[in-house]
Amino acid sequence: MSQSRQDTARSDEPNRLANIVSKIFAGQSGNTSLSICLSNDASAALMAGADAQDDCAVFRMTGAQELVVGSDYVRGPKFRLYELGLLNDYDVGYYLVTANVSDIAAMGARPIGVVTVVRYPPDMTDDTFAQVMCGIRDACRRFSAPNVGGDIGGAERLILSATALGVCLPGHALFRHGARPGDVVCLTGPTGIAGAAMSYFRSGTRSALVEDKHREQLLTSWSRPNARVREGVCLGDSGMVTSCQDTSDGLKAAIESVAAASGVGMVIDERRLPIAPEVAAVCECLDLPVPPVMFGDSVDFELLFSVPRDRLTPLTGLFSAQGFRFHAIGEVTSAPDVVLRQSDGRHVPLPGVAWRHQSDSPAVPLAT
Amino acid sequence: MSQSRQDTARSDEPNRLANIVSKIFAGQSGNTSLSICLSNDASAALMAGADAQDDCAVFRMTGAQELVVGSDYVRGPKFRLYELGLLNDYDVGYYLVTANVSDIAAMGARPIGVVTVVRYPPDMTDDTFAQVMCGIRDACRRFSAPNVGGDIGGAERLILSATALGVCLPGHALFRHGARPGDVVCLTGPTGIAGAAMSYFRSGTRSALVEDKHREQLLTSWSRPNARVREGVCLGDSGMVTSCQDTSDGLKAAIESVAAASGVGMVIDERRLPIAPEVAAVCECLDLPVPPVMFGDSVDFELLFSVPRDRLTPLTGLFSAQGFRFHAIGEVTSAPDVVLRQSDGRHVPLPGVAWRHQSDSPAVPLAT
Repeated sequence: MSQSRQDTARSDEPNRLANIVSKIFAGQSGNTSLSICLSNDASAALMAGADAQDDCAVFRMTGAQELVVGSDYVRGPKFRLYELGLLNDYDVGYYLVTANVSDIAAMGARPIGVVTVVRYPPDMTDDTFAQVMCGIRDACRRFSAPNVGGDIGGAERLILSATALGVCLPGHALFRHGARPGDVVCLTGPTGIAGAAMSYFRSGTRSALVEDKHREQLLTSWSRPNARVREGVCLGDSGMVTSCQDTSDGLKAAIESVAAASGVGMVIDERRLPIAPEVAAVCECLDLPVPPVMFGDSVDFELLFSVPRDRLTPLTGLFSAQGFRFHAIGEVTSAPDVVLRQSDGRHVPLPGVAWRHQSDSPAVPLAT
Repeated sequence: MSQSRQDTARSDEPNRLANIVSKIFAGQSGNTSLSICLSNDASAALMAGADAQDDCAVFRMTGAQELVVGSDYVRGPKFRLYELGLLNDYDVGYYLVTANVSDIAAMGARPIGVVTVVRYPPDMTDDTFAQVMCGIRDACRRFSAPNVGGDIGGAERLILSATALGVCLPGHALFRHGARPGDVVCLTGPTGIAGAAMSYFRSGTRSALVEDKHREQLLTSWSRPNARVREGVCLGDSGMVTSCQDTSDGLKAAIESVAAASGVGMVIDERRLPIAPEVAAVCECLDLPVPPVMFGDSVDFELLFSVPRDRLTPLTGLFSAQGFRFHAIGEVTSAPDVVLRQSDGRHVPLPGVAWRHQSDSPAVPLAT
């Protein structure tokens, strides 16, 4: 089978910048539709983006605002599902953006841009490189966060890292440290899906043990992960939320981290936790208990937040008006313990093992 | 020989964050000495930095300003001089910051912060990890650009990437594209030192062929590289400069890139190029011609810029007043060619081979 030139071409960095990156991100600079208007006085407008090919992107900022900046490396080609051939280069580019934009969402800010580092091995073709960049572009479009530049060049393997930028009005950035006793603990959606996907596909039983629709959902949690950007903006704008964090280190890690930063405890109510059907299906299929999967090492990009009890109804209204929902899953306590109230009323430690990023070694066991 | 616990300890990510990163960067959040005041109306103040341990750093921005954002991955442990044992982990952390801050300098902006990605192999001890972070911290101090957060965690080897942020008054960001025929081409200092260092130390003749003082300067270009931050701010503030870029891809690449972006040519005058004594020494020692070393693949972080001829004297005055200098090395032409005017008056193509970042393969030959 012959390969076209396009399939095998390997341009150097200046040509990749000029012929691939600049074309994919053409028309950014000065594009007014990419401006973020926070109020009559405060705005952030992209003046020079990836298409400008300068050393840096430039935004024109006016008025009082908070600038939020976070950075995440993603393992990308070291993901087990990539190694298993279930994710491709487009997917890991897409994932890179989601992981970074999720941090902006968790701070209650509107994304204004993402800068990406894409380093590739010597044998990566222009075609494959373009797939990575297209995954980045498409995720950026989904989250209205233009890829405004970054760094491309060689490395011994594909290395992906990024920084996301966002803005919000002064005093509206959300932190981990503001939860107060009596606040309600809330979650934007079910967790454990990405972890269940990992368990399922790594188990080697991926032929047909769960229904196709569940299998698809499991894969989507890695190939087209969603960041709760609009929900995060809603939380930030509301002025009602006392703390927030995404669940990218797992639900247990998020709960423990917010509780520790706030100097409080939490009682999470097992009966109120949303359970994704695909998580239930995997647990049944692999004979795993559900709670450790929901709490443990699973990168789901949901938002965990706290809100004073008397603001629960108005916040629910704000969410409903935009077609979103969240789940009240527990309560903040002054006692510093973080516990799960089981269906039988007993309090037990949170199940699951928190992701600790120690290395690229295999994920920790899901069962407690 | 016994090793202390500290030398062999390998904490997981949460403990590294809590016990190493947070301590190294303690006291950032809300530290008013880290605020940048651009005018009576415009400022950028760090509200939440690396010590806050949130998903993102937060800056409070007031008034009209331009936000400049750039990202650079550095090969760090893949640097040949690291592999040769001439650079250590502290040095590559330091280098990471310089490379990123240099991009902000080249845009004429004041750095407000750096976010860093530091991924480490499973066998990296806390002690070594702390050395990387201390290198980052010390370079950040040098350039008044606090390390406000980022990402730490595991990888198969040390992976270093960062994003630097800066601000300037509206209209003062410098780009590559504004050079105009008749402008004078200027350079903040001699180039080729980092490239000469690479040639020298790789040649295996590193015993004592150049004088110790030169050897030290050669190594310093990699272990304590300088970014021209104050010079860049001076250029941006002046409002006189028509284009700017750093020489991190080599002088030839910088000249060609500014010329191409501006749609102009340049005549560079060989007699006016500043020559570093250590470059001359290496060239003599290795029997290399000097010009290809000065123009070629050498990461020197000098600034190349253009200024209208009638602004040359006032700009020189501004620089002198701050104890800096620059070198007028040529002229912008309407003819699109970029040429070197040799001492004998002949025009020849720029010597040297531009760095093209294709891969981690050995550097291209220095001689033309």
